[in-house]
Amino acid sequence: MNEFELIKRFIAPFGAPSSPAGPGDDCAVLPPTRGSVVTTDAVVEGVHFTRRTFSLEDVGHKALAVNLSDLAAMAATPTWFVCALGLPADVETADVQALARGMAALAKVHGARLVGGNVTRSLQLSLTITAAGEARHPLLRSGAKPGDGVYVSGQLGDAAAGLELLREHATPSGDEARLIAAQRRPAPHLAWAHAAARDVSAAIDVSDGLLQDLGHLCLASGVGADLDSSALPISEALLSVSGSRARAADFALRGGEDYVVLATVPEARRTAFERRMGRAGLAAFRLGTTSRKAGVRLDGQPVGKRTGFVHFD
Amino acid sequence: MNEFELIKRFIAPFGAPSSPAGPGDDCAVLPPTRGSVVTTDAVVEGVHFTRRTFSLEDVGHKALAVNLSDLAAMAATPTWFVCALGLPADVETADVQALARGMAALAKVHGARLVGGNVTRSLQLSLTITAAGEARHPLLRSGAKPGDGVYVSGQLGDAAAGLELLREHATPSGDEARLIAAQRRPAPHLAWAHAAARDVSAAIDVSDGLLQDLGHLCLASGVGADLDSSALPISEALLSVSGSRARAADFALRGGEDYVVLATVPEARRTAFERRMGRAGLAAFRLGTTSRKAGVRLDGQPVGKRTGFVHFD
Repeated sequence: MNEFELIKRFIAPFGAPSSPAGPGDDCAVLPPTRGSVVTTDAVVEGVHFTRRTFSLEDVGHKALAVNLSDLAAMAATPTWFVCALGLPADVETADVQALARGMAALAKVHGARLVGGNVTRSLQLSLTITAAGEARHPLLRSGAKPGDGVYVSGQLGDAAAGLELLREHATPSGDEARLIAAQRRPAPHLAWAHAAARDVSAAIDVSDGLLQDLGHLCLASGVGADLDSSALPISEALLSVSGSRARAADFALRGGEDYVVLATVPEARRTAFERRMGRAGLAAFRLGTTSRKAGVRLDGQPVGKRTGFVHFD
Repeated sequence: MNEFELIKRFIAPFGAPSSPAGPGDDCAVLPPTRGSVVTTDAVVEGVHFTRRTFSLEDVGHKALAVNLSDLAAMAATPTWFVCALGLPADVETADVQALARGMAALAKVHGARLVGGNVTRSLQLSLTITAAGEARHPLLRSGAKPGDGVYVSGQLGDAAAGLELLREHATPSGDEARLIAAQRRPAPHLAWAHAAARDVSAAIDVSDGLLQDLGHLCLASGVGADLDSSALPISEALLSVSGSRARAADFALRGGEDYVVLATVPEARRTAFERRMGRAGLAAFRLGTTSRKAGVRLDGQPVGKRTGFVHFD
């Protein structure tokens, strides 16, 4: 199968493009915007997944999900994305269609439109996506002030625990399967971000572990933070599988790939924010508060330097 | 060196970002546009270059150049780009800085702004760029009508001949060095495209070989084309190195990676177009005309199916 046939098969599940838009010309043509945001993120075989532990639908889903999570952190509404594929020689037409199916299903949920792409040979299967969203007032990492509440949009640590289970070749129990699903199929928290946006002073998505990403937000905002370990949102599945609250808390604090939104909310907005999220049926887990004093502390103790999941060092 | 330090080193040669823009948050924040275009293209070690035959500055240059060439084909003005790096374990800080230097120099020439990126480990060095441009009236592949003139913005075949020379480990002569430079350092023809745009009915960039890319334009426009082999623009260097006009013409027709613009111009605009390009000191090589009859013919003979450079089949 040649490059052009392969591209045709890949884009089929995404439905017909509406004009003005690609794919099919040298560039995709995009409509005017009143302000947008853009992000790029890749998933690479052997680094972010293996074909033994992920289905190709999972891979297609996750490649887009990690980009949409960046859009969620800015409270942006997904608009378009492009996908560059690196395909090893043993990847067949059916494989490419499976990647596309997983990606297209998630794209449809969030209204993100595939407008272009690229295909090249490579030794590792890789998907590099660039995704854009509309955001007239994007949330930044730098807006937190001392005394803001620190919230996350969902439970922490499941995906990292799921990764360990995948490595162990386990035949998963129900709880284990939940954690593995969190690893394979992260769900970008776009609805949460849109509901929260008006009260939020700063936000980031948690991809490298809570402590590390909170550290980035604090540094960008010029604040520190105090967290309460008892407030960490830990799923029943994680608690059950990890065997102890301490071990579960370690996944929640340092495990990567949660893809929840971490947001700060000024004290003056606290009541309105918590009530509004509650009325919308959305969890808002309050972990602590930001502080004038730099650094992140857990139950009063400074957290170490090596705080999270580092893909690369 | 960790991921964050490495990113800092990579972005340094690009100068400080102006607001609103990344890098440094979950997404880059982009200004409003009245219409834009976007493209994505990757260069991968062992597929598009080797570290033996390209300097890392060459690689950084070429990764951006192939994307800017897509923008040229739409007559767009480059605005922003993002760059996702796949880095093997043996790539060092100085290597990343060399990639960035080559890329930043070209970005500066064309006013393209790095607004974000991503870094991941990989077995092959790879650079996947997504680039956008402003284009209120983008040129499409689909606008040609029968009887339009077929033009290219520069000489053909040099880069493909340069690739053969690289493979042969030659100590290059002056002519050979010119061809090798065309392979390593393609120059996107943005100035040509902007000057030509008002008279052009359809355009594409020549990346997979003249015959193949002309075939794409013809298919999109629902026309055919008749070319005159004597009109092929062939450099003195290519003629000299390839040893015969016939062999040089083969590079010009089927060789890939020219990164010139192929454009069609209605007969009614011909005189104005050719004079205007001449006054601007820009070459406009007329290769033939489009036709109602489908297919591409060279000196009256249909060209074969396998017409160009296929990265992938």
